[in-house]
Amino acid sequence: MQIDINLKQNEQSYKIFINELDTITLKGKVAIITNPKVSGLHLNTLLSALNCDERFIISVADGEEYKNLATCQSILEQLFTSKLDRTSTLIAFGGGVISDMTGFVASIYERGIKFINIPTTLLSQVDASVGGKTGVNNKFGKNLIGSFYQPSAVYCETKFLKTLPEREFSAGVAEAVKMAVMFDKDMLFWLESADLSDENELKRLIKRAVELKAQVVSKDEKERGIRAVLNYGHTFAHVIENFTNYKQFLHGEAVSIGMCMANKLALNLGLLSQNECDLVTKILKRFSLPVSYKIDDIDAFYDAFLLDKKSENSKIKFILPNQIGSHAIRDDVKKEMVLEILSEFK
Amino acid sequence: MQIDINLKQNEQSYKIFINELDTITLKGKVAIITNPKVSGLHLNTLLSALNCDERFIISVADGEEYKNLATCQSILEQLFTSKLDRTSTLIAFGGGVISDMTGFVASIYERGIKFINIPTTLLSQVDASVGGKTGVNNKFGKNLIGSFYQPSAVYCETKFLKTLPEREFSAGVAEAVKMAVMFDKDMLFWLESADLSDENELKRLIKRAVELKAQVVSKDEKERGIRAVLNYGHTFAHVIENFTNYKQFLHGEAVSIGMCMANKLALNLGLLSQNECDLVTKILKRFSLPVSYKIDDIDAFYDAFLLDKKSENSKIKFILPNQIGSHAIRDDVKKEMVLEILSEFK
Repeated sequence: MQIDINLKQNEQSYKIFINELDTITLKGKVAIITNPKVSGLHLNTLLSALNCDERFIISVADGEEYKNLATCQSILEQLFTSKLDRTSTLIAFGGGVISDMTGFVASIYERGIKFINIPTTLLSQVDASVGGKTGVNNKFGKNLIGSFYQPSAVYCETKFLKTLPEREFSAGVAEAVKMAVMFDKDMLFWLESADLSDENELKRLIKRAVELKAQVVSKDEKERGIRAVLNYGHTFAHVIENFTNYKQFLHGEAVSIGMCMANKLALNLGLLSQNECDLVTKILKRFSLPVSYKIDDIDAFYDAFLLDKKSENSKIKFILPNQIGSHAIRDDVKKEMVLEILSEFK
Repeated sequence: MQIDINLKQNEQSYKIFINELDTITLKGKVAIITNPKVSGLHLNTLLSALNCDERFIISVADGEEYKNLATCQSILEQLFTSKLDRTSTLIAFGGGVISDMTGFVASIYERGIKFINIPTTLLSQVDASVGGKTGVNNKFGKNLIGSFYQPSAVYCETKFLKTLPEREFSAGVAEAVKMAVMFDKDMLFWLESADLSDENELKRLIKRAVELKAQVVSKDEKERGIRAVLNYGHTFAHVIENFTNYKQFLHGEAVSIGMCMANKLALNLGLLSQNECDLVTKILKRFSLPVSYKIDDIDAFYDAFLLDKKSENSKIKFILPNQIGSHAIRDDVKKEMVLEILSEFK
């Protein structure tokens, strides 16, 4: 199964292959950026598919807290030491942390070399695999340093998901729920009863999420318009992750809570009905996703929105569902209403 | 005087203004990245031309040895602390070191914000002002980490050049000589007697160098073909700069020596006549530029070519004049011949 990603803005395009990782043939040197866990479980599978002149394995510590410039510098050093050049290719082999950093490093190594993305988590397959957002966190927030840089190919393999802990699998489902709430009512209804332990249903989930995201991104690569809709739940999630030092929740879990917060706001603004709100919560719970988080300091939480890079000119842009399958972008929500909503979360 | 830079590859375009810095009006926050010397001499001139909501001055240490990731991180920290957002603008106010770092930081700050380039050295006006190459050095070499990122406007002011030390002025002339040797015979002959203390002749030099570079870059933004020709003299210069820790020579001076080395190679390969070779040397000397450098370890010098990011697949690509005003790219030069040429420099 193949999905074409066409980006009009810079004439770039690439393919996402679903369950088609048979042979990858590359010229020049190849560096695989991975982590100890993924390499332990799946590196052999990748290596037996890979044909290249010379390959290097670079393993970095796993976890959002290592997604920073220091880790990127360490990767860069290893690439220079291995004398990769402009004909070389990086392969991101891991979850979103790995692909975000590998894409970023590829974008700045000698002003840009090729990279292939092989996401090994459901979250990175349905979300990070499309869109070309790369980046790292710093003490000011998440993904604040980065670039827009496209992979030359993406391989999504359901076989890599078999070893994924249930929590991480669910975190991926959260991003798929996000796509459904924003763009595809039918998909959301399907998620109410889909059996994702079934290989074909899982493939269907990945395919549909990727297709939807590809449609959005091809219209707006650099996030000047419609692409912002993909941040549904994320304005809240980024603050939650930041406040919990990226330790308490997986990204998808934080997004799950963030969507519930956004939905409450949408409910208050009359954009969403109570039934719709409940349906989303029910689906999230079905996949054991968290739907609440107690905020200790509501004002500090609100202030943290302002550092989010989507907040332009100190206006907070809320991405909200406008009935299921559609969306609204609102930058006119009164602070009082937001604080009221936040105080309801316990 | 205005020159349009059109980049086909990504539909971007911007203007280079020569002696037209009257008023710059910008929305949102503005950070001016500069160094102590330039700000001491010219910041008032810039500030009186600048209209914006809120401005910040970020001063960084001057010199190629500070053009590294650590300095960029310090700039990034200050930008985050000042809460710049995606509507903000960076202004590079200084020489090539400042513009290379500012462009790079702008390209990775929240995945890219606007930047305006106001080069205050002749070198950065004739060279770095066009092309969108950004980057920093590391222990492995020069500009090895960076990106392609275009400014939204460039202002070249001859008034800023009046305070430039003679050595730095000449270093800028070296890059103009490079353009002439590669692309414009008439310009080279003109340089044999041009009086650059004359404002109009100086403007003519900047304009012609910028025009020539713009033509090249608009054809090949990402350096996949013709743009490589701009590296005439640079393959050698980068090694010289690296070997002398970026301390002994200004970049333009190293390029001057590098061109003489390349010319000798061209002479040996029958691409250039002795007269042409001598003419270029004569012009470089006219501007008090160095034309020789004693290499202590010729083999180490040769090996250092291989880490240059233009060396693909361990082949060294030499950019050579093919008669004055034209060029050749050669990756078939025998190591022995290169070593022989290098040994002639004392």
